[in-house]
Order: sequence, then structure tokens, then C-alpha cells
Amino acid sequence: MSHFELPKTEHLKLRLEGAVLHLSLDRPEVRNAMSFAMVEELIAVFDALEDAAESDAPVRAVVLRGAGGHFCAGGDVKDMAKVRMTSPEEPGGPDDPLVAGNRLFGTMLSVVEAAPQAVIAVVEGAAMGGGFGLACVADVTLARADAKFRLPETSLGIPPAQIAPFIVRRIGLTQARRLAVTGGRLDGDQAKAIGLVHESYASAEALETGLAQTLADLRRCAPGAVAVTKDLMISALSENLEVLLDRGARDFARAIRGPEGVEGTMAFVEKREPKWARTDA
Amino acid sequence: MSHFELPKTEHLKLRLEGAVLHLSLDRPEVRNAMSFAMVEELIAVFDALEDAAESDAPVRAVVLRGAGGHFCAGGDVKDMAKVRMTSPEEPGGPDDPLVAGNRLFGTMLSVVEAAPQAVIAVVEGAAMGGGFGLACVADVTLARADAKFRLPETSLGIPPAQIAPFIVRRIGLTQARRLAVTGGRLDGDQAKAIGLVHESYASAEALETGLAQTLADLRRCAPGAVAVTKDLMISALSENLEVLLDRGARDFARAIRGPEGVEGTMAFVEKREPKWARTDA
Amino acid sequence: MSHFELPKTEHLKLRLEGAVLHLSLDRPEVRNAMSFAMVEELIAVFDALEDAAESDAPVRAVVLRGAGGHFCAGGDVKDMAKVRMTSPEEPGGPDDPLVAGNRLFGTMLSVVEAAPQAVIAVVEGAAMGGGFGLACVADVTLARADAKFRLPETSLGIPPAQIAPFIVRRIGLTQARRLAVTGGRLDGDQAKAIGLVHESYASAEALETGLAQTLADLRRCAPGAVAVTKDLMISALSENLEVLLDRGARDFARAIRGPEGVEGTMAFVEKREPKWARTDA
Repeated sequence: MSHFELPKTEHLKLRLEGAVLHLSLDRPEVRNAMSFAMVEELIAVFDALEDAAESDAPVRAVVLRGAGGHFCAGGDVKDMAKVRMTSPEEPGGPDDPLVAGNRLFGTMLSVVEAAPQAVIAVVEGAAMGGGFGLACVADVTLARADAKFRLPETSLGIPPAQIAPFIVRRIGLTQARRLAVTGGRLDGDQAKAIGLVHESYASAEALETGLAQTLADLRRCAPGAVAVTKDLMISALSENLEVLLDRGARDFARAIRGPEGVEGTMAFVEKREPKWARTDA
Repeated sequence: MSHFELPKTEHLKLRLEGAVLHLSLDRPEVRNAMSFAMVEELIAVFDALEDAAESDAPVRAVVLRGAGGHFCAGGDVKDMAKVRMTSPEEPGGPDDPLVAGNRLFGTMLSVVEAAPQAVIAVVEGAAMGGGFGLACVADVTLARADAKFRLPETSLGIPPAQIAPFIVRRIGLTQARRLAVTGGRLDGDQAKAIGLVHESYASAEALETGLAQTLADLRRCAPGAVAVTKDLMISALSENLEVLLDRGARDFARAIRGPEGVEGTMAFVEKREPKWARTDA
Repeated sequence: MSHFELPKTEHLKLRLEGAVLHLSLDRPEVRNAMSFAMVEELIAVFDALEDAAESDAPVRAVVLRGAGGHFCAGGDVKDMAKVRMTSPEEPGGPDDPLVAGNRLFGTMLSVVEAAPQAVIAVVEGAAMGGGFGLACVADVTLARADAKFRLPETSLGIPPAQIAPFIVRRIGLTQARRLAVTGGRLDGDQAKAIGLVHESYASAEALETGLAQTLADLRRCAPGAVAVTKDLMISALSENLEVLLDRGARDFARAIRGPEGVEGTMAFVEKREPKWARTDA
């Protein structure tokens, strides 16, 4: 496949700059609360990115952020209230549209987590509920020290059902349980201390510098090798170790005999940068 | 079910204060060492609490601590020595009473971990062996900076067999392995640094203030939503992700259509506190 | 079995001092890069150590380090380039010798991780690729603050395929993913902050003091109990909790009725050191 096209989106702003896709949640009037429509658009974009990885398309990184000074205020309560008007035979049963609606959030978090490209989340302002979840599935999450992470669900009488497993994968059961029972509020520094984000920055300038450094670091890493490595690492959470090592050995052999492996080792011997690391690439 | 009754206990002191059950290990003369009888009482209390969650019983939190300035010195060596007098056909075989006796500690840690209510452990003084394990299964663990955490088992020639899996769930394999081979001693600050406890306090006053704050935080969280969230998070360690997200979606739909979800979202829209957050509730 | 013999090795320096086996990667001219031959020797030594645990052999700890000021520069690129000259029918297929060659690294990391003895890694200078992996599988890893940890694979166009699962087991998915997409460079202090190493020391003297303290701590722990505990903890990552607790109860009963359990509890009652803790043992 050689053609790559991003879907048209209404609630997301997309801008491709070199090999970097800048994606902004774009409903600043509601602090980028995630409507079902926005969640579907996110899934469509990351589906396209998965196809792109198998094409010659140049996307190597996605930078996720929110428009207007906030990352994301979580699921859109109005959307949910509307769907709640339905009267299924049994709440939570097969004909309850809230089941499918809620499940969509989990699908979205799964496809972002599994993206073959590097995903960087940049968190300013509020990151609540689904926004908290989105911060949990990026490869690198950078935050302002005054960002406000929060899980407000249990105070609304509902569980953070689709987010919960991704929180455990991110920060472990110990910190996750505490957040669950206390309605967890964290600033950027506290989020870094428990491993939710990777870096916390005191100013907007420092944050942008950190983002630029992260993008420079990942330019040196071969895109195909990054995709394989992410997949092996995510699989390590659930797959049998021996089976995974067997798979890894086959992946390794294919990679070192493939174009990236040949270019990478040749560049190493010739003491030059590989093609993918060139700033004009 | 609408009736809730706590079991009579000899080695535990129970005091229900509002929605909070204060539970003290109460054998101060042996630094609250866990006899088999005490372990059985703990299991009985938490079994009753599991039933309580399905009744109208008002228990929303359990505060675990030790009487007399120590949390818990671990398993009662005298108890074990007595049982060792038996002569089973094969050590560790089906008729060895030490197998069932030891297994009881794991059952106790499991039922505390899975409690539908929020469980807060308050650690002062010694937390050794089984006491170390108990600190590992609370939702929130608060410690004095001068608390003494220790795994003395391997220095006694025995493995911390029932505690080991809960340590790995709590602090990860990396820190757990180090403790295993060095007989791990930690104070409160060190325990916080590796994620065994959530907060470490320099004074008794600060510890009580931290406990009051934690109880205030969890009052804002709906009890049913807390129970569902804890269950989803603990399940995330072992259950397939997609299966768990499907279950979560059904849980979510039931919750948002249920009494807590309706009250919580209405209170949010009406900019008032939900019923469960009222201090007079 | 009562006889224990270490294999002859060409690329590893072995020195048994009391109960401690000092093992140095010994190719200082290439910063101890791991050739296939070195990997096979490591596997042979740890296979012998596994047998040793069931004999009367006195090895209780292994100290892993690198000769000449560096820990290990990773896989030997020349070795791999040689094997790449082969032309299998299908890259990564059944007759591709690179598959078996790469898989050997995973086997080596597995046998080191599962060693019944305590394994202490001492990291000075470079710890790259396979060396990074080796630092991930020790029970206790001590580093110089100026050590240089790095995952250079993706910048060479290949995945750290055998190392990836062990990194996730060591530092969790969150930190692992960041390293994967940015080619992760860390010094000793940063490695400690994310839990890759247990201690970071500012000077060579402090590092040796830390090693001596670790060896003193583990002398107090009974060797058989340590082996059982390590095995239970590693199993906790993949085994069903209830099944593991059942196994643990049988292990416990056998241990407390066995020679170590009897000596350990008797020494405790008699307020003396158990035999295994005596410095002349």
C-alpha cells in the first residue's frame, strides 16, 4: 500500500509537519470534553495511522494535545445524559446503547496505545477522566507542573470503567487503587512522581523545549524498529515469556536483514548517521 | 439483604464510627503477632464486610491499625511451632496441617485486597512478615516515617510464601527480589520511595491529619462506584484486556442508570454535593 | 548430587571466594561486547549454578561485573554481521541462523533471572543493549552514578527483541515504552529513579562498600529459603494467584520442617545467629 490519507475531522485539528502529525482535541469551549463523535474521529485517525505504517507514508510521530490551554475534561456528560434517555430492557444488557457508547472509549485508548508510531502527549491544564486515560497510553507524556490530573468519576457515582485497566498498566495497581478510592487529584509533579507522566515542566517554554528534544531523540530511531519494539513491550504484559522471546527472535532476524537493519549497521560501521536520522528526511 | 452484623472477635478490636470501621489488631503484648485465631477473625470480619456491601449497611471504609504502638510483628512463631509437632506422612503433603495453616494467611490477604469498601492501613512501629503483607493489600497505606518494615522470613530459614505474590503486586518484581535476598528492612520514607506505602509522616499528629484527609476524600466518592472500580483494577492484573473492557462497559451502563449515577450526575448539574458526600450522612 | 564443577570459560573470568562467585565479563578490548561464545558460556555457568543449588556446593551469591571499567557494550555487531552472510530461504524463517543466535540472548537472560542464588550486578561505565538487559535480571543492581545505560538498537534499525520483555518486567511498560521510542540514555541516578537499578553511588569506594553491605545482608538469609522465595516472586508475574498461594503453602510447610527451618527457628528462640549467618561459614 502506498497511499495514505487522513480522515476528515470536525472535533480534531490535524496538521502534518514533516514526519510529525500534530493532533489537537478541538472543542475548547468545553475544555475538549470527549463527545462520542470525537472518540470516533480519534479511532479513525489512529486506524489510518496503522495503515500508514505499512505504506511509504512519512508519519513517524503523533503529538497529542488540547486546544485552548486544556488537555481534555473527560467524557462529555451531555452526550451520556442523552443516551441515558433510552430505555433498554435491562440496564447494561445487550440492547443498552450506553454499553457500546462507553466501550468506544476503551477501543480508542487501545488503538492509541498500539499505534506503530511514537505517540507523545503534551498535557496543559485539565486532564480528567478520558483525558487522564489518554495521558496513560502515550509513549511519552510531558506535562506542565500546574496541570490538573483528576479521576472525577466515582464522585459522579460512576466507575472510570474503560480507563481503569489503562491506569493500572500505567502506574501499577498500588497507585491506581488509591486514586480510585480518593477521587485522585494530581498536579504535574505528583503525576511524574507516580510514573503517570515522564516529565513535568515549570513553564510553557520548558515544555516546548522538552517536546523538541523528545522529537529529536526519536528521529534517530528507525520507524520500523520502533513499531516492532513497542509491540513486543506491550505484548510482554500478557504473553508467555518463552513464546514472546521466540517471536522476538524472528522479528529480530527479519529486521537485521531488512532495509533498516542494513542501513543502520552500515551507517554504524561507516560512522555516519543513518538515513532516518537526517534532519532533512 | 438488609441486616449486617460484625462477628464477635477476641484478637481484634472493632469500632464502627459513622461509616468507618476502625479495626485494631489487638494483641499488644506480642506486638500484635498474628495467631491462626487472629487470621481467622480477620477473614470473618472481611467476609461480613463483603456481605455488607450488598446490604444497606453503612460501612464505607475500614481503617486497619495495631494496638499499642506497633502495627504487626508477623506470624506467631509459637503457633507454628505447635503445629510443627504434628508428623504428617510427607512434609507439605495433603495431611500436613502446616499447609492449611500457612494458606490461611494468603486467604486473609486476598479477602482484604478484594474488600468492596476502601481499606486504609495506618502503620506505626513494626510491620513484619504478615504485617508487611497486610500493608501491601490496603487501598491507601499511611506510615510513620520511623515505622519499621521488614521481611524476616528468609533469616528464619523459611520463605514469605503467602506474602510474596502480594509484595510483587504492590511494589513490582524488581524491588520484591531485592527484599527477598537481603531480608529487606525499610523505614516509612524508604517504603514510600518504592511504592509500598502512599505517604510517610514525621509525627503522630501529621499521620492523623493525613488519615482524616483521606477519609474526607473518600467520602466524596460513591460507595458502589468505588467497589466496581476496585474490582476492575484488581482484575486488570490477570484478565484479558478486551474482556475486561467489555465487562467495564456493562458495569458503567448499570452504574450510570442506577441510583448513584442518577444522584451523582444530577448533583453535578445542580452544582450541589451528592448525598453520599454530605458530612451528616 | 554432591559434586559441583564450574565450566571452563574463555570470555568470562570466574573466581569463587567463600560462598560468592565473582563473574567478570572479560573482553575489555571491546568493552565486554557479548559474542555468541560469551553468551553460551554465561548459560553454561548458570546451568551449573542451578545444579549446584541442589548439591552441597557452597555458592550462595553471584557478583556480575565487567572487566576494565565497563559493564558490557551489548551484542557483538561483528558476530551478527558474520551470521547475516548466510542466505536462508526466508528471513526469520526456520532455517535462518540469526533466529537461533538472537534467541540465545533471551535464554541467557532467563537463566540469570531464575538463578537459585542471589545475583548482584555491579555496573560501571557502559551498559548497553544486552548489558542493559543483564542489569535488568539481577536481584540487586548497584551502579556508579556516572554509568551509561543505553538501548542503541532502534538507532541501528533493529529491535531490542530479547531484552524488551525483561525491561518491561524490570521498570514497567510506561518507562520501557519511552526508552524504546527515544533510544533511552540514562546515568546511574536516572536508572535508580525509574527502578532499573537499586542504588547509585558517586564513587568507586561507595560502590564497593554498598556491595559489601549487600553481601553481608544476604549472608543472614538462608540459601534454600531465598531460592524458594525468588521462584515464588518470579512466578507471581504469570501464575494464577490462588494456584500460587497453594504452591506457596506446600513450600512453606516443607521449609519449616526442613533443616533450614528448624535451625532458623531454633536460633531465633536461642537468640543466636543461625549457622548460615556465621562469617566463618
